[in-house]
Amino acid sequence: MQAYYRHIIACNPPLDEPFLPWRVDRELVGWVRPAFAEQLHDFADVFEIAADELRLAAHLEGFDRRSASLNVVAQELAGRGITPPFMDEPYAVTPAGRDAALCVVDRAAAAHFGVRSFGQHLNGYVRGPDGSLHMWLGRRARDRLLFPGALDNMVAGGLPHSLSLEVNLLKECAEEAGVPEALARQAVPVGVVSYSRVAARGLRRDVLYCYDLELPQDFEPRNTDGEVESFMLLPIEDVAQIVRDTDEFKLNCNLVIIDFLIRHGVLDPDTPGYLDLVLGLRQPLNRLDVAPAAGG
Amino acid sequence: MQAYYRHIIACNPPLDEPFLPWRVDRELVGWVRPAFAEQLHDFADVFEIAADELRLAAHLEGFDRRSASLNVVAQELAGRGITPPFMDEPYAVTPAGRDAALCVVDRAAAAHFGVRSFGQHLNGYVRGPDGSLHMWLGRRARDRLLFPGALDNMVAGGLPHSLSLEVNLLKECAEEAGVPEALARQAVPVGVVSYSRVAARGLRRDVLYCYDLELPQDFEPRNTDGEVESFMLLPIEDVAQIVRDTDEFKLNCNLVIIDFLIRHGVLDPDTPGYLDLVLGLRQPLNRLDVAPAAGG
Repeated sequence: MQAYYRHIIACNPPLDEPFLPWRVDRELVGWVRPAFAEQLHDFADVFEIAADELRLAAHLEGFDRRSASLNVVAQELAGRGITPPFMDEPYAVTPAGRDAALCVVDRAAAAHFGVRSFGQHLNGYVRGPDGSLHMWLGRRARDRLLFPGALDNMVAGGLPHSLSLEVNLLKECAEEAGVPEALARQAVPVGVVSYSRVAARGLRRDVLYCYDLELPQDFEPRNTDGEVESFMLLPIEDVAQIVRDTDEFKLNCNLVIIDFLIRHGVLDPDTPGYLDLVLGLRQPLNRLDVAPAAGG
Repeated sequence: MQAYYRHIIACNPPLDEPFLPWRVDRELVGWVRPAFAEQLHDFADVFEIAADELRLAAHLEGFDRRSASLNVVAQELAGRGITPPFMDEPYAVTPAGRDAALCVVDRAAAAHFGVRSFGQHLNGYVRGPDGSLHMWLGRRARDRLLFPGALDNMVAGGLPHSLSLEVNLLKECAEEAGVPEALARQAVPVGVVSYSRVAARGLRRDVLYCYDLELPQDFEPRNTDGEVESFMLLPIEDVAQIVRDTDEFKLNCNLVIIDFLIRHGVLDPDTPGYLDLVLGLRQPLNRLDVAPAAGG
């Protein structure tokens, strides 16, 4: 398999189980396991459970009423141990982008409902006097729940629905890498990568907003929230080699870096499989191989 | 409709007629109108025509034998006036990228066979002392067959299978905009845009390799092949406004420029419909709404 492309496969593995579409106001906003839908029968005034789909009850109209009902459900599910503990961090429930959200649901239950989740990843890079590119990488703290000790983008984090893209990015830049606000404001939004895969809790459908931040040669990132063990600055060719030949990076960071390599011409169109790679970075927002489950 | 997104729709309009898949060695390489497939019955040793697909005859093995047979067919089709006159310019017949070509077919017949075609578009831009971006645009000559007088990327051209990406880009840079080779070699490959639509001759499925070339402030493009009437340098915000509010650009140039605007953060993630726009620039290499025709 093409060495870079295996990361796209890893982030979008074939589905091997059925999911039920979840609709709010007729719009497809998520996918749930049939077994999870069964557990929602206790909330008969919130959900309509059909054989082929889960619907938010039609009488729940408007962002606030829907969100309030889902909040009660999320707290109850957390209390019963069906989901992880309630986090009080609202995630968008949306058929498209964040701006099209129809309501919110707590982060602890978001994965079970298979809603799209949004994150921001920032490539911190330095351009040498000769034009050569170097990239700052973080190594995740060993006590992190997910991917302890793995390599990571300089700044990366989830995006709560309550914060704007700008505010959340500035916050993550400060917390994760000690980037002063004036410098962080120079980050350039450069597009998105998207992928989806089955995880333990449900169908993960992620959209990562990507940013490039050119850093002064004397800047050194400094972690303040304990999430990063150390930072290192590597020539871009070395970063490419790590992505190509190893699994040292947290899974989705590989896609963010491949996107960087493509946009900066480090990976050029003569690379075998280039087209599949470029197109593979942006998977459709709804997986096309998700077939509605036969029974509810 | 979102002002930028209408260009993605225009380049990928809904299909309103059936097409038959064309396969070489079981791989899907093109789509043909059933009426065109009918006209291939005269070449019984080259094609197998089934009710639901067109196949290159199985006995034609290898790149050279396949290409030689298709060359004879293309010359005959041109002679009968079924296609435009033979051009002696081989186009790749491929299930994926150029590097996966199974054979070639003459450009004059390529559109009828619905093969993927490849092009290169270059964004020539200037960065002001204050970091502001300006872009060079061309206005197409009034005697051009397609889109006479329309705005165009500074350099843009089709990509014959016989030329490498590098050689063709240097050639187009020299011919279309008088870019010296040393400068043209600084062009950075930055990805692709892809789209497909029904045209008079058949299903067009285009992949455009995109390049950014930062130009010195004193550089002035100069056309040498008569294809461009004039060039102009505009602030990037003005270019964005032309794309957003008018149809002055040749159809596919809009997508190349939208991609530039996204990669350089001129269009930021708070733009309504940003996600659809980013994902819409790269359509799957095979249209998912192409349904095989019922009859051959």
